[in-house]
Amino acid sequence: MNDLLQKPRKIYVSRSIEFNAAHRLFNPQFSEAENLAIYGKCSNLYGHGHNYLLEITISGIVDRNTGFLFDLKELKTILEEEIIARFDHKHLNHDVPELQECVPTTEVLAVLIWDILEQRVRNINNGEFTLHEVKIYETGKNAVRYLGE
Amino acid sequence: MNDLLQKPRKIYVSRSIEFNAAHRLFNPQFSEAENLAIYGKCSNLYGHGHNYLLEITISGIVDRNTGFLFDLKELKTILEEEIIARFDHKHLNHDVPELQECVPTTEVLAVLIWDILEQRVRNINNGEFTLHEVKIYETGKNAVRYLGE
Amino acid sequence: MNDLLQKPRKIYVSRSIEFNAAHRLFNPQFSEAENLAIYGKCSNLYGHGHNYLLEITISGIVDRNTGFLFDLKELKTILEEEIIARFDHKHLNHDVPELQECVPTTEVLAVLIWDILEQRVRNINNGEFTLHEVKIYETGKNAVRYLGE
Amino acid sequence: MNDLLQKPRKIYVSRSIEFNAAHRLFNPQFSEAENLAIYGKCSNLYGHGHNYLLEITISGIVDRNTGFLFDLKELKTILEEEIIARFDHKHLNHDVPELQECVPTTEVLAVLIWDILEQRVRNINNGEFTLHEVKIYETGKNAVRYLGE
Amino acid sequence: MNDLLQKPRKIYVSRSIEFNAAHRLFNPQFSEAENLAIYGKCSNLYGHGHNYLLEITISGIVDRNTGFLFDLKELKTILEEEIIARFDHKHLNHDVPELQECVPTTEVLAVLIWDILEQRVRNINNGEFTLHEVKIYETGKNAVRYLGE
Amino acid sequence: MNDLLQKPRKIYVSRSIEFNAAHRLFNPQFSEAENLAIYGKCSNLYGHGHNYLLEITISGIVDRNTGFLFDLKELKTILEEEIIARFDHKHLNHDVPELQECVPTTEVLAVLIWDILEQRVRNINNGEFTLHEVKIYETGKNAVRYLGE
Repeated sequence: MNDLLQKPRKIYVSRSIEFNAAHRLFNPQFSEAENLAIYGKCSNLYGHGHNYLLEITISGIVDRNTGFLFDLKELKTILEEEIIARFDHKHLNHDVPELQECVPTTEVLAVLIWDILEQRVRNINNGEFTLHEVKIYETGKNAVRYLGE
Repeated sequence: MNDLLQKPRKIYVSRSIEFNAAHRLFNPQFSEAENLAIYGKCSNLYGHGHNYLLEITISGIVDRNTGFLFDLKELKTILEEEIIARFDHKHLNHDVPELQECVPTTEVLAVLIWDILEQRVRNINNGEFTLHEVKIYETGKNAVRYLGE
Repeated sequence: MNDLLQKPRKIYVSRSIEFNAAHRLFNPQFSEAENLAIYGKCSNLYGHGHNYLLEITISGIVDRNTGFLFDLKELKTILEEEIIARFDHKHLNHDVPELQECVPTTEVLAVLIWDILEQRVRNINNGEFTLHEVKIYETGKNAVRYLGE
Repeated sequence: MNDLLQKPRKIYVSRSIEFNAAHRLFNPQFSEAENLAIYGKCSNLYGHGHNYLLEITISGIVDRNTGFLFDLKELKTILEEEIIARFDHKHLNHDVPELQECVPTTEVLAVLIWDILEQRVRNINNGEFTLHEVKIYETGKNAVRYLGE
Repeated sequence: MNDLLQKPRKIYVSRSIEFNAAHRLFNPQFSEAENLAIYGKCSNLYGHGHNYLLEITISGIVDRNTGFLFDLKELKTILEEEIIARFDHKHLNHDVPELQECVPTTEVLAVLIWDILEQRVRNINNGEFTLHEVKIYETGKNAVRYLGE
Repeated sequence: MNDLLQKPRKIYVSRSIEFNAAHRLFNPQFSEAENLAIYGKCSNLYGHGHNYLLEITISGIVDRNTGFLFDLKELKTILEEEIIARFDHKHLNHDVPELQECVPTTEVLAVLIWDILEQRVRNINNGEFTLHEVKIYETGKNAVRYLGE
């Protein structure tokens, strides 16, 4: 089966999930005036929120037997445990321990999600595939990508 | 000009804007357990958030001189003053006086926005057009419509 | 709480879910040539498929205590049992008993889904809300709505 | 076949097509200053343009034999002849005879398209279905609907 | 003309088309139980289906005379002959000879489409442009990219 | 703060804006027949138009103090001055001096926007970030990317 995969083929598979969270952009090391100048209304005291759309891309050689890059059910479990449980219906500033010492910008969030997922993905296989990219759309107009560099 | 408008034509014009807000679904008249049973993780203490997409529809007879149902610039000002200033980058439970005695579900939010806009729209014209519908997409999967009934 | 709901407010709440299915448009009462003339390449022997996007709309008076029109968790269970279990990852012509004597066009599918859901929704409440509309997008370009008339 | 259609079912079928056109909003009966006040930068001399997304909705009783409301191939021909040939890759002010005495706002365009299609749809059947709605998205944020009233 | 193109500019042009197909994920070399464990409900006997969205990207130096990377009409013909004729309204397991010995996962489909198109694109020019990427969205949540590596 | 940014992290931030413009594809150095053969109905005399969706991507090391790659307000001003003022509600062939000697294809437009923005972005910082990509969607089906190569 799958003669097309006789020679190794490097594939990128992306999977999107959404989580709904609140956040506040505020750095306690800045003055109130500085926070307002830098973060504008994103620094409002109680925070605001977004439908964060997260797109994970994994790359590697397609498995010749299954025709899959990886087991989607396994990825689903990882995303449920690491992303949904941690961020969905949470206030990023109050509810996420890893962000306590951070300003939860989309840039910082992308870096954190990379650090969390890169390790998990690395542990479940023998190097046939790796995390390639974490992309977060904060709104339909703004997106941030991190590739681990 | 605009012979096509010689006979009156009833048109529905929709305009969409987005606002990013946090909210928490919690009714202090219910016990903690009841809140959790009814609102699930939407009842988390510090709230979560959404990119709310609001679609306003106004209906009426097209103006034969301009070919417009209404002056878009006037609507833009109204939406800026009534929607963006009130809801954007806010925590609905803490920052919106009109919602202090409410559970800020999307249903309640649609009703509130109708009540606010219906009055403004009625005041700026002599009955040529009226607010027809307020629609809010809380996520890509959930939407609520209110038509003033 | 929820003074805004002191007077009854009629709300329309929509929820979207996707199911992926195959179908073949073919009426055994027509000749091969007639089937080809009417259904074109939709009549191909083994069928083809779609990502069907189903949007259910329920309307009624918002509950003053909860601020909800209905319990989303209850709707989720219904959609899981009646829609996902019946149609998702199925071949509509072979796997759905209710469609054995039907040409599974999107029109027919919308009617069937209405008939199934209308009964379920009616049974779970005392008339505070009813099924208002079943809408199916077969592709991004084609949609069918049925309102029970 | 199609027992589900034994009792008559009223269905709404929508079909979307796109056309790319230029237009200028300018009424020669107004002064330059008035045009600028009313139409803003939409009154620029050479015009600007849009990807107009047109959604046609036809309603009627589903045909029990075919399971279709109408013949999609016939609708495709009509849209090709009446919409694409007339508006696609055209400048609405210069190239469309029916708009010579009009300010080509989206409202006016919706009315014109209704007038053109309503007649064609009426002529191809014996009253089993009629044009229900013409909807035009000028951008992702603005839409106009006309239902023939 | 086109002074901006005096120095060579490497451009990536993407074009999207949709095809609607059925497929079944099943490897006859696995047992029924293994197939179910690996492919879940994707292994259902008669298959299911998708609206596959295919995005082809071609890269190369823009032609200084035309301002185009390549002739869109030529690409349209190629996509009609190679993609639409082969996959649209087909059952991938039964109707596509190239997939007879394959499990038609999206990964395998992307590799096959690359192999088909890469040759065609190479043959119609003298090296000014090449196929850069084949991307397939199986649903709005899953996408696969192949770049020929 | 922002311990996650202690080691430098290279981030890509994308921002999308829309502008509505008319254009005509016509090269005066070609005959009428050649223009028609190359550009088809895009060569119509008065032009047609599009909702151009422009996506700018900037890459660089995230600022450890702010958690931002760059100041969004500064980018907003640049896009307002360089893109909206120059292209929005304009006819590209008549109103944009930089395109007077060009056929305003999407390819050429992407190159021009790169040339304009690359300089502006370079001038506002000390090398912490650079313009990475200009992407333009002319319609939902066609997109062009330029990365400055």
